[in-house]
Amino acid sequence: MPDDSSHDPQELPHDDWRSYGPPQLPRVLESALSAFAEQGYHGTSIRDIAGGAGLSVPGVYHHYRSKQEILLALMVSVMDELLSRSRAALASVSDRPEDRFDVLVESLLRFHMFRRSQAFVASSEIRSLDAENRDRYVRLRDEQQQMITDIVSAGCVSGDFATAYPEDAARAVATLCVGVASWYRDDGPLQPDQLVRRHLGLARALVGGT
Amino acid sequence: MPDDSSHDPQELPHDDWRSYGPPQLPRVLESALSAFAEQGYHGTSIRDIAGGAGLSVPGVYHHYRSKQEILLALMVSVMDELLSRSRAALASVSDRPEDRFDVLVESLLRFHMFRRSQAFVASSEIRSLDAENRDRYVRLRDEQQQMITDIVSAGCVSGDFATAYPEDAARAVATLCVGVASWYRDDGPLQPDQLVRRHLGLARALVGGT
Repeated sequence: MPDDSSHDPQELPHDDWRSYGPPQLPRVLESALSAFAEQGYHGTSIRDIAGGAGLSVPGVYHHYRSKQEILLALMVSVMDELLSRSRAALASVSDRPEDRFDVLVESLLRFHMFRRSQAFVASSEIRSLDAENRDRYVRLRDEQQQMITDIVSAGCVSGDFATAYPEDAARAVATLCVGVASWYRDDGPLQPDQLVRRHLGLARALVGGT
Repeated sequence: MPDDSSHDPQELPHDDWRSYGPPQLPRVLESALSAFAEQGYHGTSIRDIAGGAGLSVPGVYHHYRSKQEILLALMVSVMDELLSRSRAALASVSDRPEDRFDVLVESLLRFHMFRRSQAFVASSEIRSLDAENRDRYVRLRDEQQQMITDIVSAGCVSGDFATAYPEDAARAVATLCVGVASWYRDDGPLQPDQLVRRHLGLARALVGGT
C-alpha cells in the first residue's frame, strides 16, 4: 500500500494516552476529514479533497481508489486511535474494575474533547459506508463498547458497581462520553481536568458506583 | 405564508404527549427529511427534494425560497414538536420536581425513539444553517435544555435530587435521551416502556435522585 494511505493501528506507550497533539493523519485523510465535517460525505467531491490536500485529482487516486475508500480509511483510523488509547489506558492500571472503569472513561472523555471532528464524522457518516465497510467499522465500535461492558459487568461481580442492567448502563456511559464532542469547546468554561472529574462522577453514578 | 410551509407550533392536548403516529410534516419537508437523513444537506439538491415530494422544482420554489429555508423550516418543526410535547408532559403533573423530571425525561426518551431521522438531521445539520438561522434554532434547543436544568435545580433545592453540578447533570440527562436515537430500533430487544423505565433509572442516577 502506498505510504500516504497506510495507517498501522499503533500501540501507544502506556503513559501517552492522556496526551493529545494535532492528529497525525495522512494529508488526504486530513483534507477529507475537514471536508466531510463541513459538507458531509455526499456533499464532498474528490476534487474538494484533492484541493484541501494540495494534490491533483489523479494525485488522490494514486493513493485511494475511491471516495468510499477514503471514508473507510478515515473512519478506521479514528477507531484505531480510540481503541489504542483505550488499551493503553487500561494497561496503565491494576485489575480492579473501579480503576479500569475510571481510566477507560477518562480516555473516552479526552478523546471526545480533542478529536471532535473525527467523532462527528464517524457518527454522522456511518450511513455513507457501503455494507461491507460498515460491518468492519461497526465491529471496531462494538469492540470499544464491549470493553466498557466487560468492566461494568466485572464491577458488578466484585461489588464495585451496582446496576441491574450492566449493558444499558455501559451504553449510557459511552453515550455520556461521546456526547462531550457535541458541546465541548477549548475556550469554554470547563477546563479539561475539571470536565473529566465531573463526568467521571456522572459515569460512576450510571453504574451505581461510589 | 403558503399552506405547505406553514407550521404552527401546536400545543398538544395534555394526554397526547406519549402518542406517536407518523410525523405530520408538509410533503416538501417530509421529502427533505428523508433526503437529508440519507445524503446530508450539501449532498441533496432541490431536484431531489422535489422528486421525493412528487413536485416539480418550480413547485418546491412556490413554497420555499431556497434549500436553506427548507432546512430551517424542518429543524424548527422538529424543535416545535419536541418542545410542545415537553410542555404537554409537564402540564400533566404536579409541581413536584421529581414528577416533573420523570415526565420530561420520559417525553424526551419517547421523542428520540420515534423521531430518529428528525433527531439525526437536527443534530448533524446545525453546521449547515446560516448564522441567523442557527441562532434561531439554538435558542429553541437552549429552551429545551433550560427546562431540564430548571427542574434539576428545583429538585436540588427541594431535596429530591442531590448533585453538586445541576447544569452538567442536566446536560448529561439530555445527552442520555438524545443518544437513544442513535441505537434504538423498533424491532430491537427493548420494548419502549422497558427502555423508558431503565433509562429513567439512569437519568435519576445522574441527578442523584432515588
